[in-house]
Amino acid sequence: MPSKLDKGVMDLFFNPRSVAIIGASIKKGTVGRALMENVKARFKGRIYPVNIKYDEVLGLKCYKSVLDLPETPDLVVIAVPARVVPKVMEECGRKGVKAAIVISAGFKEVGEEGARLERELLEVARKWGIRFIGPNCLGIYDAWTGLDTIFNPNDRQDKPGPGNVALISQSGALGAAILDWLAEAGVGMSKFISYGNAADVQEWELIEYLAEDPKTEVTMAYIEGVADGRKFLEALKKAASLGKPVIVLKAGKSEKGMRAVASHTGSLAGQYAVYEAAIKQFGGLLVNELNEMVVAAKTLSWLPTPKGDRIAIVTNGGGAGVLATDAIELLGLKVADLSESTRKELREKLPPAAAVNNPVDVLGDAPPERYDAALDAVMRDDGVDAVLLISIMQSPAYDPPGVLKAAKKAVSKYGKPVVMAAPGGRYTVDKLLMFEREARIPSFRTPEEAAKALTYLVRWSRIRNRMKGG
Amino acid sequence: MPSKLDKGVMDLFFNPRSVAIIGASIKKGTVGRALMENVKARFKGRIYPVNIKYDEVLGLKCYKSVLDLPETPDLVVIAVPARVVPKVMEECGRKGVKAAIVISAGFKEVGEEGARLERELLEVARKWGIRFIGPNCLGIYDAWTGLDTIFNPNDRQDKPGPGNVALISQSGALGAAILDWLAEAGVGMSKFISYGNAADVQEWELIEYLAEDPKTEVTMAYIEGVADGRKFLEALKKAASLGKPVIVLKAGKSEKGMRAVASHTGSLAGQYAVYEAAIKQFGGLLVNELNEMVVAAKTLSWLPTPKGDRIAIVTNGGGAGVLATDAIELLGLKVADLSESTRKELREKLPPAAAVNNPVDVLGDAPPERYDAALDAVMRDDGVDAVLLISIMQSPAYDPPGVLKAAKKAVSKYGKPVVMAAPGGRYTVDKLLMFEREARIPSFRTPEEAAKALTYLVRWSRIRNRMKGG
Repeated sequence: MPSKLDKGVMDLFFNPRSVAIIGASIKKGTVGRALMENVKARFKGRIYPVNIKYDEVLGLKCYKSVLDLPETPDLVVIAVPARVVPKVMEECGRKGVKAAIVISAGFKEVGEEGARLERELLEVARKWGIRFIGPNCLGIYDAWTGLDTIFNPNDRQDKPGPGNVALISQSGALGAAILDWLAEAGVGMSKFISYGNAADVQEWELIEYLAEDPKTEVTMAYIEGVADGRKFLEALKKAASLGKPVIVLKAGKSEKGMRAVASHTGSLAGQYAVYEAAIKQFGGLLVNELNEMVVAAKTLSWLPTPKGDRIAIVTNGGGAGVLATDAIELLGLKVADLSESTRKELREKLPPAAAVNNPVDVLGDAPPERYDAALDAVMRDDGVDAVLLISIMQSPAYDPPGVLKAAKKAVSKYGKPVVMAAPGGRYTVDKLLMFEREARIPSFRTPEEAAKALTYLVRWSRIRNRMKGG
Repeated sequence: MPSKLDKGVMDLFFNPRSVAIIGASIKKGTVGRALMENVKARFKGRIYPVNIKYDEVLGLKCYKSVLDLPETPDLVVIAVPARVVPKVMEECGRKGVKAAIVISAGFKEVGEEGARLERELLEVARKWGIRFIGPNCLGIYDAWTGLDTIFNPNDRQDKPGPGNVALISQSGALGAAILDWLAEAGVGMSKFISYGNAADVQEWELIEYLAEDPKTEVTMAYIEGVADGRKFLEALKKAASLGKPVIVLKAGKSEKGMRAVASHTGSLAGQYAVYEAAIKQFGGLLVNELNEMVVAAKTLSWLPTPKGDRIAIVTNGGGAGVLATDAIELLGLKVADLSESTRKELREKLPPAAAVNNPVDVLGDAPPERYDAALDAVMRDDGVDAVLLISIMQSPAYDPPGVLKAAKKAVSKYGKPVVMAAPGGRYTVDKLLMFEREARIPSFRTPEEAAKALTYLVRWSRIRNRMKGG
């Protein structure tokens, strides 16, 4: 594999002027049909269906072979049976194609016969200088250019709108599920790459490319095994030194998990403790669970990086404030010591029964004005780096739009990150969504999860400071 | 305080024949009005509003004093200003009242003056032999009898329907938020008690009472501090020996959390490490976070207790299967070794590319028949105690009603617990809810959370075996 990233070729994957779909079909329920529909729906460039069986597919002229196309397509997407793929790749080479996505499965993941086929495919591509993603993958979704080869049905597979978060995933199904989840969570996306068996294009190349991608600020990576550990780590380091966090979820952490990886993608998972230490050293933001990856992505995508780890808690419920305090301390962040002048101001502006030490308890009957006063005071305090806002919304006095307005005001005035926690049911969940949609304040059901969201910010802040300038 | 639980008096709190509301009001937005509305809405017994200002409240005759009532009410609910409460309690004593709930705040939690008032209140109650819950609490919600003193507005405060989970909470606001959350999660409830300052009735009495309550199978307890550690622990032990799990969330785990507790309820939180060891020893099911408490309650409420800790994973996505494997192993459960005959059966019934070791991968294109075959085979295996079912629902082949049917069949045939994980967005979340509502299979967004749910079952199974028969 090439030792240096060829950005020009990589660009072809995401922003091609023309795409050929080899294995395009008119038959409902086939991958070839779903691919055509997806690409036709949003992609603005020229589209060439290729299938020996058809003269036309979805109103577009269909070609017998890639060799018959009126131009060399910037990108080909291959979705034909595995045994035919090397021959198709050969034709692509003769046509001068430089970039391909091989959707087809039936390679290394099915045993020795498939592994042989995969080696053959790789040889052909190398001979012609073609870079390809896959095989055994879902391919690419670029939210900005509209290129989309993720062929799950649209009624059960949502995709995020344009944004600054990228995702690469060794598992196609899990990657698609995360894509769907991010869409529902309102997290905007730059690029998604399901890279499957990684016969040619490797995860480290994608991480490097995304680190230099102006549309990408945060990269999520679901990894089972890597072929070249050193290059993977160097890519993490490069991203961190460019100020772009890479959130890594490494599967195969346990003995049996490693075995499950081997039977899933045929990768060698490797000892997790080694990965763990190395990923941290090279500036990766390692998370332990799927949920953490999504929470970290949302939080890093939406919020500024804090200067430090001193957290102020503003709450209208004492119990939830205690839980937040516990979580912050146990997660290794600090419950901020408010300055004397901040406490004085809070004493003046809040009722006598309010607590003016951190956590600041504005009391159960707090109207938005009290939240406003408390948020303004604690965010102005130089000893506070971020705020964990708690809302007990069952309280009749709690006014969601009023508190939202106060939070937005404080955020825009002081530029410090704010996360929110509000335990509850239907009404609360609906309002949490309002805080996310209207103010991009990451909002959670529990104080503990909100505190965890802050840890990703603080960890990234430390990584960035350590890795700055490489 | 009495050293032995008087069950007869305790019954009056939840199932009184008559209730007096002292401080009943017609004024909208007041606690006295909300209390009247709530109690009138569902309580079937006799209701007596008491307020010197009114002749009638919400169509019911209003009395100047509890002394004027035509009978001695089984229960009085007191919601008048703190300074008047001792006098009201004195009148209750003269009337022969035996049980009271003191909603009013302004006692120990506001400082020395309040603490004095609370001691005075306790003396009056002791003199007359009245047991009371509170002060500074929300009181009681009994889902079976309909008695409800939780006075938050109904548009933002849901309450669960009748079921087998009880909740006691030292924090009223947090307790109400959990109530709301349980309602949305579809968890049925027996009794909720917000016990506030616990001047008289203590958490240990409530835990003992609930352990003997035929309507209650699982108790959740949010605790900041306890006055009598020994009695608290003995109550946990009693519940466990009666086969009733008590899920304990203890706040004030950190140094600063302990200080926050002191300024919230004025309780002494005590060293967490001591609590932790003692709660575990006495058979409490200790959880670390709010979310865990809700997940544990749902899981213990809905599922049978497994015989052991050997988990089978059935998945249509390899990546999610690896994450589940990791989580199960790292949480200290076991990924079951399937018997040779189970694996043989799976090889016969699943396609060649399927994985028949645990995790069992039925592949991304699995129709429900494959789930059916896999679930039936692994649940019949004597080496499997519980199942973690994974559904990648973005796959076009995945059929939610079909898999639901297969899961229900296997559950009713083998009686082993099943939890489900399905990562995704809108479509998936909607179907997860279907699995919960229609089959009571606790369903989660991630394999890791589903694995955690299984740990509560396994931990409870071990506690129960250890504590059986006291």
